[in-house]
Amino acid sequence: MEGIIVAKNLVVAQGGGPTAVINASLAGVVSEAKKHSEIGKVYAAQGGIEGLIREKFIDLSDMADEDIEALKRTPSSAVGSCRYKVTEDDHEGIINILRKYDIGHFFYNGGNDSMDTCHKISNIASDIQVIGVPKTIDNDLAVTDHCPGFGSAARYAAVSTIELGLDLRALPIHVSVIELMGRNAGWLAAASAIARERGEAPHLIYLPERPFIESEFLEDVKKAREEYGGVVVAVSEGLADENGDMIISPKHQSAVDGFGHVLPGNVSQYLSELITAKTGIRSRSEKPGLLGRTSKALVSEIDLEEAFQVGVRSVQAALDGKSGHMVGFERTSSDPYAIDYKLIELSEVANVEKTMPDSFINERGNDVTDEFLAYCRPLAGGELPEYYRIEY
Amino acid sequence: MEGIIVAKNLVVAQGGGPTAVINASLAGVVSEAKKHSEIGKVYAAQGGIEGLIREKFIDLSDMADEDIEALKRTPSSAVGSCRYKVTEDDHEGIINILRKYDIGHFFYNGGNDSMDTCHKISNIASDIQVIGVPKTIDNDLAVTDHCPGFGSAARYAAVSTIELGLDLRALPIHVSVIELMGRNAGWLAAASAIARERGEAPHLIYLPERPFIESEFLEDVKKAREEYGGVVVAVSEGLADENGDMIISPKHQSAVDGFGHVLPGNVSQYLSELITAKTGIRSRSEKPGLLGRTSKALVSEIDLEEAFQVGVRSVQAALDGKSGHMVGFERTSSDPYAIDYKLIELSEVANVEKTMPDSFINERGNDVTDEFLAYCRPLAGGELPEYYRIEY
Repeated sequence: MEGIIVAKNLVVAQGGGPTAVINASLAGVVSEAKKHSEIGKVYAAQGGIEGLIREKFIDLSDMADEDIEALKRTPSSAVGSCRYKVTEDDHEGIINILRKYDIGHFFYNGGNDSMDTCHKISNIASDIQVIGVPKTIDNDLAVTDHCPGFGSAARYAAVSTIELGLDLRALPIHVSVIELMGRNAGWLAAASAIARERGEAPHLIYLPERPFIESEFLEDVKKAREEYGGVVVAVSEGLADENGDMIISPKHQSAVDGFGHVLPGNVSQYLSELITAKTGIRSRSEKPGLLGRTSKALVSEIDLEEAFQVGVRSVQAALDGKSGHMVGFERTSSDPYAIDYKLIELSEVANVEKTMPDSFINERGNDVTDEFLAYCRPLAGGELPEYYRIEY
Repeated sequence: MEGIIVAKNLVVAQGGGPTAVINASLAGVVSEAKKHSEIGKVYAAQGGIEGLIREKFIDLSDMADEDIEALKRTPSSAVGSCRYKVTEDDHEGIINILRKYDIGHFFYNGGNDSMDTCHKISNIASDIQVIGVPKTIDNDLAVTDHCPGFGSAARYAAVSTIELGLDLRALPIHVSVIELMGRNAGWLAAASAIARERGEAPHLIYLPERPFIESEFLEDVKKAREEYGGVVVAVSEGLADENGDMIISPKHQSAVDGFGHVLPGNVSQYLSELITAKTGIRSRSEKPGLLGRTSKALVSEIDLEEAFQVGVRSVQAALDGKSGHMVGFERTSSDPYAIDYKLIELSEVANVEKTMPDSFINERGNDVTDEFLAYCRPLAGGELPEYYRIEY
């Protein structure tokens, strides 16, 4: 029937840990899909790829514009996520479900594990457009300049560190070790350095890219305590020693997630006890944990808009006939901040983890460099809150 | 010289842990003092009563209105605080300093330890007006309906619990134990219940007012896990068993603060390990700690205004010839919320700790009652943020 386009349906799913802006990408997909008659129904798989396998579909085709806007500004994964490793046993089931729902466009919104899943689907479902939508607070996806979700988590890390610094300046009776997420990549603990726009904290930063050396750490803490009084130490949850053993009590070492990754324990509590035991300096720990990836109040507006745009551009790429790609960013300038969107082969990002380059970490391994700050600062969004300061 | 008033100077100090709105009380004192010619210089003692003893004075007499407004909206203690127990050895020194600076009005802004200090000063310095300005996120000052600082910390607890609940709804792979401040009084962990205006979390709440019974706790967690999937358990840092021993690993028990109080360890991490060890359910902990008392973004506007007003009214009380009192609140209605300010004898609040009444805790000891919510809700300020929800 000449001139009639047979509209294929779309399915989008959210994988891995939630972020403050992953729903903005979902909103971007739904919003853009509604504009194109080549797309029929707009489904979300409820609970990631696992939900798709279990045929848990939510029809978002008729979502009103105001609902899309509200979704965009709601943290966490509104259609549910999963940590599920697709195996060959799942392949036939996935294909059958995609056919049953007449899916022509598949979008998976997640980090490097999810991009691996997405890559597998693109290999087994060659007749549909498969596009990866990046998301991870860990900022560890390869090739792309950065990842949606990181900027907001970075803003949370920075603002929390400012406020913790204010508390310790006022009552300088201890060292506080604040633990930020990131197993093998220290991007978020590093981002705490942005806090120095509003004070002295953090005084020290330790990242998993460098082996944790207890003697140097204790020396640094003692020195900072003498110099500043109240001290804020920002650490990545995944700190490890020279043998790669995580800096947590041994009993945690056996805990693994759905992908077999060792789960971090509580490095901040361990280190605060270490400080007190070895130096006598009073110490405590703060571990916002999951709160650092779902804060509505501390979203980075740049991150939010980019997260929305990767959703929009994923749909455009699919309609352009592309498949087996992830939408990513190429930075063209840091000051003023500017990026181009680009398509990256899924094979280049699946299961690859991008850690911080040497040029972003100082020689001692207890701080970041100005080059890192120039890279990171724009991602955390506009001006930080103002705090009135009385000098003394 | 008939008709000439000899202006006496004023000193204000901040004691104990910072809050998100304690500077609003300082702003209230400074703002009101500026209006009265009976008051000469307006000093802040830098670092609480310890700073006063050490003669660390900051002159705030010429603070501009816009600076007062900015101070009002800055969390933490802008002139520094202390945890210092005044002894008889300090009395003469304090009197001498007060005379040296020609102080006629002394204001101490803090919790029940600080009110004890304030009470002592009112006894030894009978020729000056001594007024207590209440402050504590713990909400455990006696007689007054509630305490400035609590409402904002309650809002932080509620919003954090909503967002943690969103995260666990999306990825329901574990139980999360969120630890909120409060050693002997569970007000803040209880306040997390406000989060249910925006979801199911918290699913369980444990307070130090009731002995922690491990078997019942594990039973509750298992049941909630079966019913909800992702589970949020809110706990007070000071949970203790039937013998009064805190639910933390024994090594923390020896840590004490400047007043000799045992410091809480990390009950949330301990309980999450307990859950996993005893039930096999995956569990993790979040411990925002000090972040929960210094968040600018999650200030309760009602709390902020009341904190400012207790500062203002303290100055008015002093000028009215009052001394040996603390400004407090008497609630006249919860719906709509309304309070009267009143003066309370310092002897009634010094060192007294107000815990939650039985009528605010359910029979099982794993939740709060509607009566508590009616009490607590207005203090946490206006509408909570909106989160878009897709039902599934």
